Amino acid sequence: MSAVLRAFLVPIVLLYAPTVFAAEDPLPAWNDTDAKQRIVGFVEAVTDPAGPDYVSPDERIAVFDNDGTLWSEKPAYFQLLFAIDRVKALADKHPEWKSKQPFKAAIEGDMETLVGSGQEGLLELIMASHAGMTPKEFQSIVSDWLATAKHPRFERAYTDIVYQPMLELLAYLRQNGFTTFIVSGGGIEFLRGWSQRVYGIPPEQVVGSSIKTKYELRDGKPTILRLPDVNFINDKAGKPVGINQYIGRRPIAAFGNSDGDFEMLEWTSAGEGPRFGMIVHHTDAERAYAYDRQSHVGRLDKALDEAKENGWVVVDMKNDWNRVFPFEN
Amino acid sequence: MSAVLRAFLVPIVLLYAPTVFAAEDPLPAWNDTDAKQRIVGFVEAVTDPAGPDYVSPDERIAVFDNDGTLWSEKPAYFQLLFAIDRVKALADKHPEWKSKQPFKAAIEGDMETLVGSGQEGLLELIMASHAGMTPKEFQSIVSDWLATAKHPRFERAYTDIVYQPMLELLAYLRQNGFTTFIVSGGGIEFLRGWSQRVYGIPPEQVVGSSIKTKYELRDGKPTILRLPDVNFINDKAGKPVGINQYIGRRPIAAFGNSDGDFEMLEWTSAGEGPRFGMIVHHTDAERAYAYDRQSHVGRLDKALDEAKENGWVVVDMKNDWNRVFPFEN
Repeated sequence: MSAVLRAFLVPIVLLYAPTVFAAEDPLPAWNDTDAKQRIVGFVEAVTDPAGPDYVSPDERIAVFDNDGTLWSEKPAYFQLLFAIDRVKALADKHPEWKSKQPFKAAIEGDMETLVGSGQEGLLELIMASHAGMTPKEFQSIVSDWLATAKHPRFERAYTDIVYQPMLELLAYLRQNGFTTFIVSGGGIEFLRGWSQRVYGIPPEQVVGSSIKTKYELRDGKPTILRLPDVNFINDKAGKPVGINQYIGRRPIAAFGNSDGDFEMLEWTSAGEGPRFGMIVHHTDAERAYAYDRQSHVGRLDKALDEAKENGWVVVDMKNDWNRVFPFEN
Repeated sequence: MSAVLRAFLVPIVLLYAPTVFAAEDPLPAWNDTDAKQRIVGFVEAVTDPAGPDYVSPDERIAVFDNDGTLWSEKPAYFQLLFAIDRVKALADKHPEWKSKQPFKAAIEGDMETLVGSGQEGLLELIMASHAGMTPKEFQSIVSDWLATAKHPRFERAYTDIVYQPMLELLAYLRQNGFTTFIVSGGGIEFLRGWSQRVYGIPPEQVVGSSIKTKYELRDGKPTILRLPDVNFINDKAGKPVGINQYIGRRPIAAFGNSDGDFEMLEWTSAGEGPRFGMIVHHTDAERAYAYDRQSHVGRLDKALDEAKENGWVVVDMKNDWNRVFPFEN
């Protein structure tokens, strides 16, 4: 750049940039409580080049659980509801399912028996309904489902049942040079088809559970095939393992809502330098749901007990959020 | 932005931007042959918003093999030379290695026996020398080795034995909105410690082979431990699987040098829309090495035969590159 151009251009850019950000609150759905103040305080600290807590942009890695943190997980994991719908859709081709658990329960909508079949039963359901096609074909099935299926209580698409304050938080972090990753117990390819559209998170920034895949020529055409075998369960102690495997460095900020996120929060917080941990506590039965220690889905017990000691922010949804879902008012 | 500011600023930026790029050749180490012309033609086509082959920046995914494509793989894979040095360094703690293959061969520098021990023997060597520590500790061992070990022929650090034309190509693609990934048969954590410094590629954009890891508390401290078990071999048909697992979408450009890259090139090329495949053919025994069909390391046979049919550019290192390594004048 010529010196003349630089002298000309730089002051304009400097003048212009702060104007935009000072003008509007980046987190309008957050009440001005301790939680919001701590988020903003952390972001300002790590982005202040003159401050002691400055972190270079490439190290500003933030990881987000999905179920119960970015979107709802009630009345059950949305991916489980998807798997049930898939089993129903495929039932005609599998007459044996009518008398075989957990398929029978899925077809009959018997949630109690389904949940009672435990992780093994649910995995069986997912394997049977999620394998045998390419990732692209699978994502297209997921997209079709998301375009038509409705949440039983809110009667809207599942991708509408996302938390407005968390969408704002994702955008706020990215505006401040963070790279935002999803680190979910849910299926990686279940998420990748819509994470960009809904969260602004591209496929390569999604970490999740996976089944095995295989490369082969199908009718001479190079293809990746989804196989009915578990590859990796990205939950609990699997989350730091998944983060290390996919991202290859320790995040400086982690956001979760259940004991399944404990190790991810623990590992993130134990790094050197400024760290941020946050737990979304579901305290709002009126606008959304209220649950914690006794819940089958999204149990929050140990992580709640140890939050204070670890310096994690516990978001009280009822009091900290003035708006829960984007579709409110 | 106010209308006045916009009227002021936009023409300056437009005036300024093309000046820089027109002024200098982004690929000076490439002779002006067909290979270079096809690279530039592809990049110009996918970045021209008005053209029929335009690809949005988020889909501009380019994948690069490492050994033999970004850095040399002669006289043997550099990671194997590292593993041999590790075995030597650890030999005092393992007296049993003196009479046990492939460790005996490693300690004695008997490359013929070592290579003869096959993939299984080499894996055993890597497991024994790469496990039992955290990823950070491992990367620190790798860094120490890279800081002192010298390439036997060029007598320089291994990270100097990288191909200048490929460094330029990485930078050129990134300048044009591409995201560049390494997709290597080598160890993912062997690469991650220095890929940013040497290639400008951050850890989260490295895909490679891996051993299993485990999350645990070590003396109460959250830790990830590297285990002596293979997790994933990112080679041959494993490369498209690894790309799908880590990146989650099909690249539009792939760069390799051996039959180990065949499936990655094949899968990349088979996608819809504009695609680019390139093979670095080692034809320069004087400045570097010359090898292809008969080589144990980096064998290039099938991919060379099928390159033309698949539309892949075959780089003739001797004629297409006017400079091979950065340290050449």
